[in-house]
Amino acid sequence: MTAVRQSDTGGDLTGGTRPDWLEVPAELGKLDPELWPRTARRRDDDVLEIGGVAVTDLAAEYGTPAYLFDEADFRSRCAEFRTAFHDFDIYYAGKAFLCRTVARLVAEEGLNLDVCTGGELKVALTAGFPAERIVMHGNNKSDDELAHAVAHGVGRYVVDSFDEIDRLTALGREHGIRPQVLVRVSVGVKADTHANISTAHDDQKFGFPLADGDAAEAVRRVLREGVLDLLGLHIHIGSQIFGIDGFRAGTERVLGLHAAIREEYGVELPELSLGGGFGIAYVSAHNPLRPVEIATRLREIVASQCSELGIRVPRLAIEPGRAIVGAAGVTLYRVGTIKHLRGRRAYVSVDGGMSDNIRPALYDGVYSTVLADRASTAEPMLSRVVGRHCDAGDIVVRDDYLPADVHIGDLLAVPGTGAYCRSLSNNFNHVPRPPVIAVHEGQARVIIRRETDEDMLRLDVE
Amino acid sequence: MTAVRQSDTGGDLTGGTRPDWLEVPAELGKLDPELWPRTARRRDDDVLEIGGVAVTDLAAEYGTPAYLFDEADFRSRCAEFRTAFHDFDIYYAGKAFLCRTVARLVAEEGLNLDVCTGGELKVALTAGFPAERIVMHGNNKSDDELAHAVAHGVGRYVVDSFDEIDRLTALGREHGIRPQVLVRVSVGVKADTHANISTAHDDQKFGFPLADGDAAEAVRRVLREGVLDLLGLHIHIGSQIFGIDGFRAGTERVLGLHAAIREEYGVELPELSLGGGFGIAYVSAHNPLRPVEIATRLREIVASQCSELGIRVPRLAIEPGRAIVGAAGVTLYRVGTIKHLRGRRAYVSVDGGMSDNIRPALYDGVYSTVLADRASTAEPMLSRVVGRHCDAGDIVVRDDYLPADVHIGDLLAVPGTGAYCRSLSNNFNHVPRPPVIAVHEGQARVIIRRETDEDMLRLDVE
Repeated sequence: MTAVRQSDTGGDLTGGTRPDWLEVPAELGKLDPELWPRTARRRDDDVLEIGGVAVTDLAAEYGTPAYLFDEADFRSRCAEFRTAFHDFDIYYAGKAFLCRTVARLVAEEGLNLDVCTGGELKVALTAGFPAERIVMHGNNKSDDELAHAVAHGVGRYVVDSFDEIDRLTALGREHGIRPQVLVRVSVGVKADTHANISTAHDDQKFGFPLADGDAAEAVRRVLREGVLDLLGLHIHIGSQIFGIDGFRAGTERVLGLHAAIREEYGVELPELSLGGGFGIAYVSAHNPLRPVEIATRLREIVASQCSELGIRVPRLAIEPGRAIVGAAGVTLYRVGTIKHLRGRRAYVSVDGGMSDNIRPALYDGVYSTVLADRASTAEPMLSRVVGRHCDAGDIVVRDDYLPADVHIGDLLAVPGTGAYCRSLSNNFNHVPRPPVIAVHEGQARVIIRRETDEDMLRLDVE
Repeated sequence: MTAVRQSDTGGDLTGGTRPDWLEVPAELGKLDPELWPRTARRRDDDVLEIGGVAVTDLAAEYGTPAYLFDEADFRSRCAEFRTAFHDFDIYYAGKAFLCRTVARLVAEEGLNLDVCTGGELKVALTAGFPAERIVMHGNNKSDDELAHAVAHGVGRYVVDSFDEIDRLTALGREHGIRPQVLVRVSVGVKADTHANISTAHDDQKFGFPLADGDAAEAVRRVLREGVLDLLGLHIHIGSQIFGIDGFRAGTERVLGLHAAIREEYGVELPELSLGGGFGIAYVSAHNPLRPVEIATRLREIVASQCSELGIRVPRLAIEPGRAIVGAAGVTLYRVGTIKHLRGRRAYVSVDGGMSDNIRPALYDGVYSTVLADRASTAEPMLSRVVGRHCDAGDIVVRDDYLPADVHIGDLLAVPGTGAYCRSLSNNFNHVPRPPVIAVHEGQARVIIRRETDEDMLRLDVE
């Protein structure tokens, strides 16, 4: 019933249709340290272990699919950012992955927190995260969300529209306080993974466009009303960025406004936020910069530009999410069905899919995978890991090699799923969402439990 | 605090960057009957009414965002398919949208049901849907799912892999029964919205490829084992299809195998399923075929091809999902913020977004919108309706016109959201999912209740 159908592939297992960047691995199943959590290793029997816990034990105890969360990896990346960016304010971007445990870890590691909605704020506050260390984002913050945030003493607001300035000003007057704000500036620069930069990308919903004067007008309005405490400007130039040139282009533009504000109002803004978007390696072909390199170069760029403009260097802030939590997460799946498409690839179906990781379908996200529960000396077989959903786009790992003897019941592990997988998870095809299991020093504990059919049906009121 | 900023747009409100298919509407806010539920109308005061209930009342009672479900529209489309395809078996594709109420309506309207997972099956069975009228799909049905389905007497299985044939055969032997199956054939034809047909699309996870003989081998294995009752072959050529040529190409290929089976085994398969994928109009530029046209042409195509092959015409089946439920759904949003990007468009932010409708980001899905709660004589303004999420792809309606006096607090309604919106909904940014409100003959009732912060936090166990 679970017969291996290796012979059905016929011909060259490593052929088929594969992308240029994918090489046949010299050592199949080896863990590329750039992709995996820092505690991940193969035991002597080749079983994958994370946080000192064997994935076979995790699968037996908690079932599959499951998100694994390496607490030590998360903490060490917080520490790495804290050290590299010691003279910056660091806000962990909760949208990447936030639950109460993560909020507590962020607090313990001395980082600040970036939230986008009242829901994220609620998670943080119920975890006891200090409100004054929270920055609140959002292009459409409601009256209720802002009132709730103000009532709890949220530290900073990145104001994103004239409407929001009006709302927050009204709340400030009402409560007799001066909410601290940064004005989000749309600088027309967009950087992506491949270091491509578009400098005319201002047709999007976030921020005040610099080009048409709206950003300057927003600053004028904040200063004129005199209720909000303007700390600085904010930019965000993209996601999963590998290069530094986009930041250079972005800071150049925003510092121009920063200098103009000093010129016009005599106000030297004390802060500047460069946002997030720092890329991570999802596959071995990816080569992101390390935090310390990014910090060094951002510091140089801003110092040089400020010097040219004759202004003081403001206190800088960044908002890394994926770069801190991405590699801490691994998804564990069990193989259910294998299909060999001759001359193309093997389709290896697992017990999850686009419900637990929609990034391949949504963003053409690429991932890698390894056989996780045993040794294999079989040759590499070009494979596509797909899910169980009724959609042809239901792909988990588009292109990678697995040993040709992969069979039903095997465990596969997919690294780099710490960011935006649980956050964007859904119940397509009424599939319940997997648990998040924190692993640390040989212990496992559930931090988000597995959803059940009953959980889903309880909203179905008749 | 909620000042209208119409004058900020400057210049021509209808200019900016718009797609070729979008025309400046002659009558702004008019309901195109091709897009809207059949009971949708404007009252004398221009308030939108669906199922005899004003959206202003719905918003006041249930809040926004909210999915509205027009029960009469759903029933009438079931009836339309039932009439047009009177000599077919019709399976409503539950993946488009399924809850217990919908399962009951499908049963009452005399249609059958297509489910893809144990979760969808559970919804159907707990709603009392007759198991024998259910067909079970899925590329990776687990042992447990199949055992559960067999135990409940599910009518048909669309077998998708050799592994599944082995599993179902074992279950049949174990229980002394003959599960009824169709073999899913990957015919290498892919049709999409724009009637483009790719005939080399067999690099995907579903079905047994026809080209390499796997489909014939699957049939051979089913017949050889003699446990499963082979009713026929199954194809599915795409989604949101407007033309008929893809079906012609697909049936031609699959009927070739159907005829070859008669030739080789003397078995005249009694059934043939043509799957689903029938397109709907999301915007006025879309022109899908009507069910009666599709039925007529499919009948002709199959009859002509069977005649050429000298075989009897099998009983045909179809699996419409979107074509039945898509237009029954409307999403109601409230405007929170408006931003005018000069020379481009207005960005109108609403209180939902990619958490309740991920199709624009996931599939480049296009939608339309109208101002729903009042009259306006303002001129048309090129607009983009965006959500409240922290993602530049968080777009609900990429391109449409709204009256230039649209302001904060206005209600917007987006038609065509009945399919794949609630099904793919998620909690990105910890935003709770909206309720589904059925409206019918002046009455509203909640069929899926609004998710709460507490619902989300209950999975967060520490």
